[in-house]
Amino acid sequence: MASPGSGFWSFGSEDGSGDPENPGTARAWCQVAQKFTGGIGNKLCALLYGDSEKPAESGGSVTSRAATRKVACTCDQKPCSCPKGDVNYALLHATDLLPACEGERPTLAFLQDVMNILLQYVVKSFDRSTKVIDFHYPNELLQEYNWELADQPQNLEEILTHCQTTLKYAIKTGHPRYFNQLSTGLDMVGLAADWLTSTANTNMFTYEIAPVFVLLEYVTLKKMREIIGWPGGSGDGIFSPGGAISNMYAMLIARYKMFPEVKEKGMAAVPRLIAFTSEHSHFSLKKGAAALGIGTDSVILIKCDERGKMIPSDLERRILEVKQKGFVPFLVSATAGTTVYGAFDPLLAVADICKKYKIWMHVDAAWGGGLLMSRKHKWKLNGVERANSVTWNPHKMMGVPLQCSALLVREEGLMQSCNQMHASYLFQQDKHYDLSYDTGDKALQCGRHVDVFKLWLMWRAKGTTGFEAHIDKCLELAEYLYNIIKNREGYEMVFDGKPQHTNVCFWFVPPSLRVLEDNEERMSRLSKVAPVIKARMMEYGTTMVSYQPLGDKVNFFRMVISNPAATHQDIDFLIEEIERLGQDL
Amino acid sequence: MASPGSGFWSFGSEDGSGDPENPGTARAWCQVAQKFTGGIGNKLCALLYGDSEKPAESGGSVTSRAATRKVACTCDQKPCSCPKGDVNYALLHATDLLPACEGERPTLAFLQDVMNILLQYVVKSFDRSTKVIDFHYPNELLQEYNWELADQPQNLEEILTHCQTTLKYAIKTGHPRYFNQLSTGLDMVGLAADWLTSTANTNMFTYEIAPVFVLLEYVTLKKMREIIGWPGGSGDGIFSPGGAISNMYAMLIARYKMFPEVKEKGMAAVPRLIAFTSEHSHFSLKKGAAALGIGTDSVILIKCDERGKMIPSDLERRILEVKQKGFVPFLVSATAGTTVYGAFDPLLAVADICKKYKIWMHVDAAWGGGLLMSRKHKWKLNGVERANSVTWNPHKMMGVPLQCSALLVREEGLMQSCNQMHASYLFQQDKHYDLSYDTGDKALQCGRHVDVFKLWLMWRAKGTTGFEAHIDKCLELAEYLYNIIKNREGYEMVFDGKPQHTNVCFWFVPPSLRVLEDNEERMSRLSKVAPVIKARMMEYGTTMVSYQPLGDKVNFFRMVISNPAATHQDIDFLIEEIERLGQDL
Repeated sequence: MASPGSGFWSFGSEDGSGDPENPGTARAWCQVAQKFTGGIGNKLCALLYGDSEKPAESGGSVTSRAATRKVACTCDQKPCSCPKGDVNYALLHATDLLPACEGERPTLAFLQDVMNILLQYVVKSFDRSTKVIDFHYPNELLQEYNWELADQPQNLEEILTHCQTTLKYAIKTGHPRYFNQLSTGLDMVGLAADWLTSTANTNMFTYEIAPVFVLLEYVTLKKMREIIGWPGGSGDGIFSPGGAISNMYAMLIARYKMFPEVKEKGMAAVPRLIAFTSEHSHFSLKKGAAALGIGTDSVILIKCDERGKMIPSDLERRILEVKQKGFVPFLVSATAGTTVYGAFDPLLAVADICKKYKIWMHVDAAWGGGLLMSRKHKWKLNGVERANSVTWNPHKMMGVPLQCSALLVREEGLMQSCNQMHASYLFQQDKHYDLSYDTGDKALQCGRHVDVFKLWLMWRAKGTTGFEAHIDKCLELAEYLYNIIKNREGYEMVFDGKPQHTNVCFWFVPPSLRVLEDNEERMSRLSKVAPVIKARMMEYGTTMVSYQPLGDKVNFFRMVISNPAATHQDIDFLIEEIERLGQDL
Repeated sequence: MASPGSGFWSFGSEDGSGDPENPGTARAWCQVAQKFTGGIGNKLCALLYGDSEKPAESGGSVTSRAATRKVACTCDQKPCSCPKGDVNYALLHATDLLPACEGERPTLAFLQDVMNILLQYVVKSFDRSTKVIDFHYPNELLQEYNWELADQPQNLEEILTHCQTTLKYAIKTGHPRYFNQLSTGLDMVGLAADWLTSTANTNMFTYEIAPVFVLLEYVTLKKMREIIGWPGGSGDGIFSPGGAISNMYAMLIARYKMFPEVKEKGMAAVPRLIAFTSEHSHFSLKKGAAALGIGTDSVILIKCDERGKMIPSDLERRILEVKQKGFVPFLVSATAGTTVYGAFDPLLAVADICKKYKIWMHVDAAWGGGLLMSRKHKWKLNGVERANSVTWNPHKMMGVPLQCSALLVREEGLMQSCNQMHASYLFQQDKHYDLSYDTGDKALQCGRHVDVFKLWLMWRAKGTTGFEAHIDKCLELAEYLYNIIKNREGYEMVFDGKPQHTNVCFWFVPPSLRVLEDNEERMSRLSKVAPVIKARMMEYGTTMVSYQPLGDKVNFFRMVISNPAATHQDIDFLIEEIERLGQDL
């Protein structure tokens, strides 16, 4: 179907599939479309003919439409007007793409074809009739395809096939029924921004090589600090590679603030330092303490109430205990939105205690920070404005693509003095612009990925009110789920009361267990229910939701909703699916 | 020009610019093209008419072509066949995109238009007639455009304009004359892979949600270990957010290997630990030591020879000195490819010393690791196979888009035991698949960005031989530059001899300084030359190269070549440009 004589650099699909509803018109247009450049013909045909590939759902082999495309013209006129012999992707290699001489057109064609594959995936991601996951066990997946690296190059036909295959086995994290993690969903503006970020391919360490992104980080962090409630948005901050690193940075800065000599002298020069966080807090606090040479034994886990909130009186008791031993309390990390229960520690009470004992107050709002965007829900973080530092991950509740985690610090300049090493090859003191915009010495990282643009562009596209609407909707869906299951046969709530965040924690009790007494045998059998249902979910590929044990509570489901695609019907579906898959257990 | 009656969802450009060479044919085709979907019409027109925007070069206002596009049809037939009233981007918002009901077509159109903007940027990036940078001072750039975040959403017309504006002020890091950092260039397959990574939007912590990427990380790290020379590629590793973090992870693991109790007890439980690295090594070693509670005073900088290589006898002397004081040497970090000189420490001699004194040997090959891909140059890393850990950043010499940094560890299992915290909500022990594929407990990070796919896909596309060809070419270009300037009037080399890596370090001495005696005044004046030339380069936007002082050497240029687009002419251009901009100083 290629038209070598058309004067255009054209592609021909050898795939003869047709649109059953309107074959004539579609085919006619498609023939016209084939005269156009850059894979456009195929894209049009795909839209007109419908998608004839369906690799993810049919489970069949990946027969690449791209593989059969032909590419004509290697002349040097732009746009060319002369016909040339056919060349197909099987004869093109990476070396034929830009910056190769004459590489512009094959590059545009190749990137457009990649884009078509991506667009198809995007559309499928939101289609409830497709699977969330086409699950294969690791050994199966290793054998299903040749993933090995070799000495010799592969042609672009093979490269396009790899892209399709990779997506065939990927989890559709934007699928309306994907609830497995705190980060779910696929935002279209965020995605576009991430593509742009990749294309700009730069590094955050200096204004010199990332002027716009550095300014946008400045603007965005300032806005986030305003929302936290620090006067005029003053303070400091940085985007870091995830909440665990943000929390570690906070611990690092808190230690430095109290004992600046630790930077040169190490922990040997300071007394034993103790950090406090709740027993429901994220494990990154312990990881950070282990890394920082503080040791996990020096992280004291404060008791929580039945809803997973830190008990302030226990915090104060433990602080006094530690002081009596001659140790130095240096950090309290309160959690705003715990990972499993979605609990919000009482920040005002924690702030009072931190003030009383002069301890750095950190708030890990990686998961709960998003609620600050909602006028209805932000009261749950009352007191956050009194924190010395805050971790807030827009890649969780705000739906920004991964990764996007901010650490906000109230005192300006502390990050810089804690981390700076004055590398003269990067932070030349005689540059011709204002050096305060070079951010590379504020953190442990030297090079730093551009994580801000997707958040900034989404914020422009949605406005604060758009994030608010998203968050209010997710919380409303969580309450909807809670209301359905709280009195439904076969369900037991892990804790009472309506959810504070979107976390809804529950056991599904299969009929065979409902008649049993509440003893160890029942617990033991109940602990096996969620893993089996989850395994079945993944094998059917219909939905994904997380489960875990916690303390003395055996495996229960933790439903979370951050997915903008989720609707009431998807919640209904989840319930039906759990019941379908767990009925016989 | 929109064709509401065509039965297609169509765009019309109101921009009347034409192709002067072939106006009739182009316009005719363009009119046909306008009938097609998803921004394709405009893409075709841009190709036919030529690029009439040139925002980056003209310095003019960003008049968005996208802004004037019209979008027709809001019907619910797919593909639709009925005409509807025009809707333009000014009336569309993020809420009209997927997962919105009927969001598929506006989404495809919007993403395609973003893509067109990106493709235009890609093409310009490689065009030597465009500027590398359209430089603005921070305050200027803040005022030039409204970057602020607001409560209310903006429409998609504005969002597309933001994309264009962001790229207008971006540094073209793929430009053939961009030499400013160790990471330069824009690889087309790597870019495609990064777009796919963004679209898949997942997290590396478990196989469950990133099956393919987790396997590809396994395959790729194993291959890298084979190349390092560990038997059968055995060992461990992870992709981390940059070389500084990889180096810190190595230090963390080395400490844990010697004193596993440090994880629980902290540095208080262990003797004073000392790390050794050369005075030319990367500052991240000191940053890591500061963070880990070891302290920068416990990082001893070993003397280098005139080429920047660590002197083994000085290393041994300092180790003995430290041991005599009762301190414990626990880590030597040798550098394979220093940041400024590109020097390779003598790894075999360092390995002998580490073996003798039972010290963990780390090799920071962030910059030099790429040379392992070249049969001609890999001898420079002889001895790397004796290291306990290696940092290797494919985002530097191998041209993989940012970020892509690997830490390789010879002993398997150590990373896991050093960092694991057994978070039950992620690493459930009763999952139905082989848990050894869950990587989230191997590092400090919890969530982890997918950095492997771009390296893997590039490796498939180029083969090891393709990376080899790239590296050999860059080293040949560095030698070409060295040969031109070593005896050229007005140049002084910072060190003698041909470059071992692509780093070429030199002073340009303007005519007015050539007549001066070699005294302090000359040094003082010479130190101001490179900053002025660099500032002028950026203002003209013609090229970018780095400079810095080092030790007692005043500001000199550090040329590095990792850009696959660079050619001999670009090297010639750089020399001419330095002379043009520095002649009057």
